Amino acid sequence: MSEPPARIGDGVDQILTPALVVDLDAFDANMAKMAGFAAEAGVRLRPHAKTHKSADIALMQIAEGAVGVCCQKLAEAEALVAAGVPDVMISNQVVGAARIARLARVAGQARLIVCADDVRPTQALSEACRAADTGIDVVVEIDVGQNRCGVPPGDPALGLALEIAALPHLNFAGVQAYHGSAQHYRSHAERRAAIDGVIAETRATVDLLAEHGLDCDIIGGAGTGTFKMEGTSGLYTEIQPGSYLFMDADYGRNKGEDGQPYAPFANSLFVLATIMSKTLPGQAVSDAGHKSYALDSGMPLVHGGPDLEVVSCSDEHGVIRDPEDTLKLEDRVWLIPGHCDPTVNLHDWFVGVRGGTVETLWPVTARGCLF
Amino acid sequence: MSEPPARIGDGVDQILTPALVVDLDAFDANMAKMAGFAAEAGVRLRPHAKTHKSADIALMQIAEGAVGVCCQKLAEAEALVAAGVPDVMISNQVVGAARIARLARVAGQARLIVCADDVRPTQALSEACRAADTGIDVVVEIDVGQNRCGVPPGDPALGLALEIAALPHLNFAGVQAYHGSAQHYRSHAERRAAIDGVIAETRATVDLLAEHGLDCDIIGGAGTGTFKMEGTSGLYTEIQPGSYLFMDADYGRNKGEDGQPYAPFANSLFVLATIMSKTLPGQAVSDAGHKSYALDSGMPLVHGGPDLEVVSCSDEHGVIRDPEDTLKLEDRVWLIPGHCDPTVNLHDWFVGVRGGTVETLWPVTARGCLF
Repeated sequence: MSEPPARIGDGVDQILTPALVVDLDAFDANMAKMAGFAAEAGVRLRPHAKTHKSADIALMQIAEGAVGVCCQKLAEAEALVAAGVPDVMISNQVVGAARIARLARVAGQARLIVCADDVRPTQALSEACRAADTGIDVVVEIDVGQNRCGVPPGDPALGLALEIAALPHLNFAGVQAYHGSAQHYRSHAERRAAIDGVIAETRATVDLLAEHGLDCDIIGGAGTGTFKMEGTSGLYTEIQPGSYLFMDADYGRNKGEDGQPYAPFANSLFVLATIMSKTLPGQAVSDAGHKSYALDSGMPLVHGGPDLEVVSCSDEHGVIRDPEDTLKLEDRVWLIPGHCDPTVNLHDWFVGVRGGTVETLWPVTARGCLF
Repeated sequence: MSEPPARIGDGVDQILTPALVVDLDAFDANMAKMAGFAAEAGVRLRPHAKTHKSADIALMQIAEGAVGVCCQKLAEAEALVAAGVPDVMISNQVVGAARIARLARVAGQARLIVCADDVRPTQALSEACRAADTGIDVVVEIDVGQNRCGVPPGDPALGLALEIAALPHLNFAGVQAYHGSAQHYRSHAERRAAIDGVIAETRATVDLLAEHGLDCDIIGGAGTGTFKMEGTSGLYTEIQPGSYLFMDADYGRNKGEDGQPYAPFANSLFVLATIMSKTLPGQAVSDAGHKSYALDSGMPLVHGGPDLEVVSCSDEHGVIRDPEDTLKLEDRVWLIPGHCDPTVNLHDWFVGVRGGTVETLWPVTARGCLF
C-alpha cells in the first residue's frame, strides 16, 4: 500500500497530488440525507460498498442506520468482514470451487448474502457450507432489463428459487432486481418508465414465489439514479445506492423531474491535482492523468473553473484548456471524476478535509480485491 | 496490498480471477530482444518502468543490460530506489516544495535524473539539494511534437539549459525528446515522418547546446512504436521503451513497414477471467470489468477467440459476444489489454506462468504511487 499523500492536521495546500480528497461536510450531508430518505420511506438501506471499498465508511453507514452493505466481489467481502463489517451482500455471482469454498468460510464470520442465476454454483455452495459448517443467504438475481446477468423474471426465477430453497445449508432470502443502465438514462421520464417496468416484473415474480411458499425477505436493487422510485415502491425492502456519497460527474448529465441537472446530493469527492507544466498558451498540464481518475464515464470536470476543461490525458498528465491563461505553475485544481467507483479503486487513501484541514485518512480497504 | 490470486506452484487453472498473468516465455523473449537491439545499435537502454511499476522487473532489465529505468512520478522513484534500483530517471516534471525536498533526499540514495521545462522548480531543487547535501542530474525536456510539456527546441531549450547548468548541486545532463503520440500513429510512414522531425529538431538543439559548451550525455526518448528509429539515429544515447515487455493490444492496430500489424514483440500480458454468468444466448459474462483492465485504448481482445469479443463492460462485469455459444460457466478467457500500463496499475500482483504452472509472483511495487 502506498504512502498516504498527507498527514492528519496538514493544510489542504500540503496534500501531495494527485490525491483522492473528500469534502467531509458534503460527504456527511449526503450520508445523512440518504439515511433520512430510507427511514422516511420505510425501506432498509444497504449501500453499495463497491463505490468506496472502505471498511471505515461502511461502518459509518451502518452506524447511521444502514443494515449492512453490498459489495461486488468475494475478495471485497473478505476484506470488509475482516475489518469488522457484520452484514455483507455480494450483489453478484460467485463461481468456481476455490471461491465458493472461501465464500462458505467467510459466511461463518458475518452475515453473508450472495446472488445466483444458475443452480450449479449454489449446489457447490451448499456442499461447501456443509464442509465449513456454515450457512448463507442466497437471493435469485433476475434480469430486469440490464441484459447482463440474472434469470428471467417469472417462471425461470421460480424454478431456480425452488431449487435453492431445497438445498441444505442455503437460506433462500429473496430476489435481486437491479437495473444498472437505467441509473444513467438521461431524462426522468426514461428512468421512471424503466423502473416502472422493473417494479412490475419484480412484483409479479415475488407474487409467484409467494404462491409457491417462498417469501422474499430481500427484494433488493436501486442505485443513485433511481433510488426514490424503488424506495417508495412499497415492494422493495432494500435499496443499494452507492454513488450518492460522492456523486459522479456523470450524474450531472441526468435531468431531474424538473428538467434541471439531477443533483439530489452534492459532489464530495475530488481528485486534487497540481499544474506541473505551463509552456504553451491556452493550456496547462496537471499531474493527474488516467492513473488517478477513471475515464469510462468521460473526462473529469474542473470544479469551480467554468472556462477550464480537461481536454485530453495520458497516464500521468492531464491537459487542461485554459483559454485565459489563468493557471500558473503549482496552482491546484479540483477535479470531479466522471465515475467515482473506478476512480476510488485507483487510490490507496481517502484524504478527508474540513475547513481547509486534513481531518481523516481512510484506507481504501478493498482496493484491488478483484476475485 | 491485496492477497495474491495464486500461489507459486499452482496450476494455471487454480489462479483466482480476474488476475494479471504474464506468459514468462514470451516476456523473457521480449526482454532479450530489446536488449539485443540496443546492444547491436550501440544505444543505452533505459526501459520505462511506468509500464510495470515492478522493482523485480526493473532489476531483471538492468541485469540484462539496461543502464537503469525511467519512471513518471517521484513516488514511483522512491518505491523503486527503496527496493534497490540504482539508477532512475523521472521522465517528467517535479514541482512543489514538498516533492522537491523529497526528490533531493532520494537523490542521495541512487542516481536520479529529472526533467525540467521551467527554471523555477530547478532553482528550488538546487536549494533542496544543498540542504540535503546531494546532487542530481537534470535534463531539459523539449517539446518535439507532443504539445504537452517541454520547452520549444532551439533557443528556449538553450536558455533553460544554461540556467540549469549555472545552478549549484545540479548537473546538466542532456535533453529529453519524447514524442508519445507518434508511438500510435497507425502507418510506418506517419511514424517515420514524425520521428524524422523529432530527430532533426533534437539534433539542432543538441548542436546549439554544444556551441555553448553544454554536452548532452543523455539524449533520451523513444517508445515501443518508434524505438528503432531513435535507436539507430546516431543521435539518441538512451531509448526508453516500456510496453515492449507486454505489448498492448493497441500496438496491433499500428502497421509495420511491411503493412502488416506491427508486432515486433509478442503479447505476454493477459487479464485472466472466468465466465460467471451465461443466461442469454449469444453472450457470456466474465468476472473482469474495467476495474481489472484499462479502457483508454479500447476494450481488451479475447486471446485465441476470433469469434469472441468484449462488447461492453462495467466495473466488475465484461460482456462477451459469443455467437456460437461456445463459452460455458466457469470457462477461462485470456484477455489482451488495450493498454498495459494503466491495466497493470489496477493490480497488486503479476502472476508469472510457464508451462501451465505459476512460477513467480511479483508485486506491483509502485502501484498507486501517484505523487
